[in-house]
Amino acid sequence: MTTRLIATYEISADSPSQALERAHAVALEQSIEMPPAAVQQPFILSDVLGRVEDVAVIGENRYRARIGLAMSTILGVNDAAQPMQFLNMLFGNSSLHDWVRCVDVDLPPALLKGFPGPRFGIDGIRALVKVPHGPITATALKPQGLPAADIATLAYQIALGGIHVIKDDHGMANQAIAPFAKRVPAVAAAIRRANLETGLLVQYAPSLSGTPRELIAQVTLAHNEGCGLLLAAPMLMGLPTFFELLNEHIRVPVLGHPSFGGAARLDPALLFGKLYRLFGIDAPIFVNHGGRFAYPPALCAAIGAAARAPWAHLKPALPVPAGGMTLARVPEMRAFYGEDVMLLIGGDLLLAKENITAAARAFVQSVR
Amino acid sequence: MTTRLIATYEISADSPSQALERAHAVALEQSIEMPPAAVQQPFILSDVLGRVEDVAVIGENRYRARIGLAMSTILGVNDAAQPMQFLNMLFGNSSLHDWVRCVDVDLPPALLKGFPGPRFGIDGIRALVKVPHGPITATALKPQGLPAADIATLAYQIALGGIHVIKDDHGMANQAIAPFAKRVPAVAAAIRRANLETGLLVQYAPSLSGTPRELIAQVTLAHNEGCGLLLAAPMLMGLPTFFELLNEHIRVPVLGHPSFGGAARLDPALLFGKLYRLFGIDAPIFVNHGGRFAYPPALCAAIGAAARAPWAHLKPALPVPAGGMTLARVPEMRAFYGEDVMLLIGGDLLLAKENITAAARAFVQSVR
Repeated sequence: MTTRLIATYEISADSPSQALERAHAVALEQSIEMPPAAVQQPFILSDVLGRVEDVAVIGENRYRARIGLAMSTILGVNDAAQPMQFLNMLFGNSSLHDWVRCVDVDLPPALLKGFPGPRFGIDGIRALVKVPHGPITATALKPQGLPAADIATLAYQIALGGIHVIKDDHGMANQAIAPFAKRVPAVAAAIRRANLETGLLVQYAPSLSGTPRELIAQVTLAHNEGCGLLLAAPMLMGLPTFFELLNEHIRVPVLGHPSFGGAARLDPALLFGKLYRLFGIDAPIFVNHGGRFAYPPALCAAIGAAARAPWAHLKPALPVPAGGMTLARVPEMRAFYGEDVMLLIGGDLLLAKENITAAARAFVQSVR
Repeated sequence: MTTRLIATYEISADSPSQALERAHAVALEQSIEMPPAAVQQPFILSDVLGRVEDVAVIGENRYRARIGLAMSTILGVNDAAQPMQFLNMLFGNSSLHDWVRCVDVDLPPALLKGFPGPRFGIDGIRALVKVPHGPITATALKPQGLPAADIATLAYQIALGGIHVIKDDHGMANQAIAPFAKRVPAVAAAIRRANLETGLLVQYAPSLSGTPRELIAQVTLAHNEGCGLLLAAPMLMGLPTFFELLNEHIRVPVLGHPSFGGAARLDPALLFGKLYRLFGIDAPIFVNHGGRFAYPPALCAAIGAAARAPWAHLKPALPVPAGGMTLARVPEMRAFYGEDVMLLIGGDLLLAKENITAAARAFVQSVR
């Protein structure tokens, strides 16, 4: 008997027999990827080939298949976790089929131990911003296209209002108008100045963007500037690249941005709630219902639950619902997600224009 | 007037007015990502905000919108190409909507020049395998789970048959049963031995898998073993990571694997035909119609066309249709794709078992 990772897929099919056939096709595709009849070694069929554990009917022409994938296909030398190979076996070639979605994964302990997960998690972020309970407030510096000095001024005005976490808009990369090496020190200094005046501890999360070498340089610069958090988009940089960047270079909590995450090919609760956490994101940003995006409330609740649910040694991550949220929705979001949440409001706050400091202050007050 | 990148999206909508509204929502999401009413600087609205160029009706409830994205949001300091930011602006947040697909992109010269594209392309691969015209044959070493010595034996048997390119199965990573550092030298030696016996020049493409540091080490090892090509899965490792790995470390042609590419969120002709080539893949592997995957013939033709079409300074890339291809289909595939093609047949060849050398020879003969 071999230990197996259990991957769960939702399959569309016209009949139960087609569903079974497709489940077996996924099991084959996500393991040996060749006709079983061409296999010459019996142990390949018993110990390496993916195994259909069960197929359940979940709706009209919709089925849920649990497939056991052999750990020998995923673990590396010395039982290393191999994050890239883990994704490859979980949903590599099968992601090219339009009739299957990957919706969940259970990792055996031998694989799970290779993923340290969030290093800070909810408690670590709370300690950083000195908010022991209740929602944590956050906003984004927008729009990209502003010169670094203007972004710093905006950050100063918002920081005076006491919002706990100010992040770069994820569109801010290393553009000539506001290069990372100019923008990040300017914003960090502006927020330090505001903090000196208010006695608060507003934290800044710059956005990382680039190739691995550039990312490392940006992390180093951000650390040197005393930035309390970082913003990373793992699907853009590549999850395995993020994994190494986090474990070898990053020393502060990380907000995970959903950009390039695709719609519904990997279930958002799996991707943003579970996989982001597995890969070490401390606070996953995701699109909340009722904003600019169409996630249903149940899905948002599932993301929040997956981020915080007890899971082996993995610290709980702090959910960050976002995507067109407004100050008016704070009470409702708080009721929906509970106290362990970071509320990220960007554009709606910026509508206050010259009154941004007062708006920021009102936002913080609203969660007290 | 600012120069803009033109991104094309297919949008589902219930009415023309909803289509227009959604096109403007994409333009906003992929640029300033905040309410225009909150913008205080007029140049942000004129020069930075995405612009809907036109919206065409293409079918029942289906529209095609062309959106101009400002180069200032994409280019970096010193007009650097910023591959991660390019993807972020092309299809970052909007990838989270289920009503929009990204189907094409036109890059202005200022951005395009930052992408060297394939360094070898069709001519470079032909020179390597000494096949000046006609299809190039390829196969995959399968299944994962075999010890390195058995994989090497299989490679030797296939190489005796003269198949031009033998690649690792993309599931072969750094598993304990066949670690990269053991498998690659063993297979490379086996193929060299076969080449000595036959006088042929069969080439080996090992599969890269890991975090950036591990990828660099694998590239170095493969170069030292004289491997003629490499196999990379850019969507798994992260396109920006691949970009840097290629430009700073890889010195041989690269086969691009589609794993983790998702179904239809980025149009496959855009992703595998155009973006893979833009990022430097010499030979994109994609799933052919009539195999294990359901791409329609027209889509496959579009991928093949995009890989080879004249495009500024970018060398043409060699299409590699695959995914359950058989020896019986060689004439049909050759007629479909023309002579500039690499035919990749894996499992069907392995059905020959102990007669694998003869089957490999027959495959090569069939394209002469």
